[in-house]
Amino acid sequence: MSDLESINRYLRESQPSHLSQLEDLLRIPSVSADPKSKPAVQQAAECVRNTLEKAGLRAEILPTAGPPLVYAESPPVPGKPVALVYGHYDVQPPDPLDKWISPPFEPTIRNGNIYARGATDDKGQALTHVFGAAAWAATGQPLPLQVKFLIEGEEEVGSEQLEKMLPSLAKKLAADVVVISDSSQYAQGQPAITYGLRGIAYFELRLHGPKHDLHSGSFGGAVHNPAIALAKLLASIVDDDGRIQLPGFYDNVQSLSEAERGMWHGLNFDDQAFASQIGVPQLKGERGFTTLERRWARPTFDVHGLMGGYQGEGGKTIIPAWAGAKISFRLVPNQQPAEVTKQFRQFLDQHQPTGVRVELIELHGGSGVVVDPQSPYVAAAQLALATAFGKSAVLIREGGSIPIVAQMVQHLKADVLLLGWGLDDDGAHSPNEKFHLADYYRGIHASSHLWHHLAQVSRS
Amino acid sequence: MSDLESINRYLRESQPSHLSQLEDLLRIPSVSADPKSKPAVQQAAECVRNTLEKAGLRAEILPTAGPPLVYAESPPVPGKPVALVYGHYDVQPPDPLDKWISPPFEPTIRNGNIYARGATDDKGQALTHVFGAAAWAATGQPLPLQVKFLIEGEEEVGSEQLEKMLPSLAKKLAADVVVISDSSQYAQGQPAITYGLRGIAYFELRLHGPKHDLHSGSFGGAVHNPAIALAKLLASIVDDDGRIQLPGFYDNVQSLSEAERGMWHGLNFDDQAFASQIGVPQLKGERGFTTLERRWARPTFDVHGLMGGYQGEGGKTIIPAWAGAKISFRLVPNQQPAEVTKQFRQFLDQHQPTGVRVELIELHGGSGVVVDPQSPYVAAAQLALATAFGKSAVLIREGGSIPIVAQMVQHLKADVLLLGWGLDDDGAHSPNEKFHLADYYRGIHASSHLWHHLAQVSRS
Repeated sequence: MSDLESINRYLRESQPSHLSQLEDLLRIPSVSADPKSKPAVQQAAECVRNTLEKAGLRAEILPTAGPPLVYAESPPVPGKPVALVYGHYDVQPPDPLDKWISPPFEPTIRNGNIYARGATDDKGQALTHVFGAAAWAATGQPLPLQVKFLIEGEEEVGSEQLEKMLPSLAKKLAADVVVISDSSQYAQGQPAITYGLRGIAYFELRLHGPKHDLHSGSFGGAVHNPAIALAKLLASIVDDDGRIQLPGFYDNVQSLSEAERGMWHGLNFDDQAFASQIGVPQLKGERGFTTLERRWARPTFDVHGLMGGYQGEGGKTIIPAWAGAKISFRLVPNQQPAEVTKQFRQFLDQHQPTGVRVELIELHGGSGVVVDPQSPYVAAAQLALATAFGKSAVLIREGGSIPIVAQMVQHLKADVLLLGWGLDDDGAHSPNEKFHLADYYRGIHASSHLWHHLAQVSRS
Repeated sequence: MSDLESINRYLRESQPSHLSQLEDLLRIPSVSADPKSKPAVQQAAECVRNTLEKAGLRAEILPTAGPPLVYAESPPVPGKPVALVYGHYDVQPPDPLDKWISPPFEPTIRNGNIYARGATDDKGQALTHVFGAAAWAATGQPLPLQVKFLIEGEEEVGSEQLEKMLPSLAKKLAADVVVISDSSQYAQGQPAITYGLRGIAYFELRLHGPKHDLHSGSFGGAVHNPAIALAKLLASIVDDDGRIQLPGFYDNVQSLSEAERGMWHGLNFDDQAFASQIGVPQLKGERGFTTLERRWARPTFDVHGLMGGYQGEGGKTIIPAWAGAKISFRLVPNQQPAEVTKQFRQFLDQHQPTGVRVELIELHGGSGVVVDPQSPYVAAAQLALATAFGKSAVLIREGGSIPIVAQMVQHLKADVLLLGWGLDDDGAHSPNEKFHLADYYRGIHASSHLWHHLAQVSRS
């Protein structure tokens, strides 16, 4: 019989230690998108491996052609399900740096939150499960089921190495349920179990014009300005109703069931409060869908960055030699990134601008996923979350992408539990990213109980 | 009687000195758009003043609230016209720096060209007249008419100070003809007299969305992406036929006369050669006009730079908090920048995007100008150019803007002579800006003779 009471007591006493270990990891600038951060990425992997070892697990670093994977496991428990925790130790780039109140890699506590790049996405959330598992060894109890950990280092740039290695790792990673905390609660204090994620197809689009910048006075009117050609091309990708214009783009989009629409309607999402939280006068998106439907279950197109020409102070009168954009399509089940890439190339062929050359660079992609919200693992998670948060979790989807999740579902034939401890306003990819410390501790608490409840599930 | 032969001889012998004085001026990074270059701008003014003094002129620096003006004059010659040379010692920003073969402020000679920022625009061209005037004193001859010099330091950012001071300087600057070399020959070895310039209205346009960057997964579909809103706004400013959509934009555009169209048709402009010179597969512009007409006598819209969001390596999945563009309209007689600014604000009001805030920053503006190609000053210049270049000049317009020219025409009631010694491929606002040394020396030669021929014109 598990002694959950002594675990609860142990966790309360361990909060200072759990905080300082999180701070140690947050100090490492493991930005996977930046080649200059390679040593920091390696250092973060070693820090995670050490933390897993201190938790009483057998931990190792698996080298890849890119950032290493960190793997750990507890002993097998015959007859019980196997759980695999997935997380990532890499982080988004911290820019714009001048918008941070405290430096991104100097974790700072203000108003009960810890501020640092990676606080919520995903260093803080990943560590909750490490400490949730550690609590069992620390209280002299073997984990009631085998728990495996796979913490990778390039989730923010598309998990290329892990995706390549998944088939060969399938035996090592074999599990009945994959547990991931890399998303949000539905609202502060209202826990959620996420049963769907969107996919993504991410590109850089570059339009090349004259061989060098031209004087816009002497040449203006003679040549197609690549920045204008880019604006027209980007503008034509999505219409004013928010419908994406790629040929066949909506053919495989899984429709929303009436049951889902009803369930989400019951969440009483407040558009106006949401708009004022993020600081816009009004929301906007695909016509005919609610805000939650658009964020969770509809594909979207976004521009992440615009580049080209003069960006300094004052004016410079040039026709730039090139202009570019970082762009992505968020995909929903059953859209495939490869298929959308093909549709996009077809669209670009059909919209080839005069007098400029179009270059499309494929940066990364991943499929969306939806799992069964009625599974026994979800029921087990409900019990753990109710104890830690004092409230039943709601069932939601998440608009973000964890592209490797769909791959793991496919290769491991495992069920998935997405347990978000974060908040919508954590600023996951923004300056001043934070993680509410109370949520950090609640996440550890919920994780420690999760192993108990998962161990009760009969293996299917 | 002027002794032009001894001037010719003197100029041939002085080429090494004229080159080294140009190099001295080119070494000074007088970038008027960059506040950090203020000391260099001051240094360039002093260098120009010293060069004018060495040319035997009475020179002085006129302080302004911005970069100083440099003024000089030779003694009055009763009964003869007065010529005012206008030029500028400030230069465009040198970026992108990595595209320069030799550093922008280390003048370097390759293939008979001198490479440096400002070589052609306008340090080299302005100096031709200083040395053209100096040749008279050096050969013991008084200049046959009074020549004044006004060399300013913020032409590249809109001549704000000079524009403000023109009314109070009108008496000092009083002249019958303003001589400006800040443009190009029609082709290598084919001199041109330019009788028209376009105007400009330059802006920065910024679209503000959420109060900070948002995760494009969690938020994509909920809010208007400012970069997409910007793309749509920019795309809507000009249609696929190259027609600008601002209300009333074409109302005051001066039409091209049949005589002008015929004259330019006679220049046998080669679209294909021009396209391959600048490295584009084909030209593009307003439908219904030839390339020369579009460059010289039709208004245009250009985007000079795109800004906002993530521009680093790899991918970052954000909805940027804002996106912006540096843009301008090139204007033709009789469009006024203030009027076009009003039309643009009206256009933006009519096209206000949902859920984002539009900010328009006015950077600078100036009117276009056209002068009489049949004036006696043009005839005098024809004689000087024919001697120096061994060929009659053609009459052209120029698509670029020297906004202060229209102001000078208005305040001084003077005629204007635009004598370009540069070449179309000099890269005036691009990396690897150059000035062909043979053209530099021909320009000095032409200038020295110009004073002789202008002195023959009866004052009107």
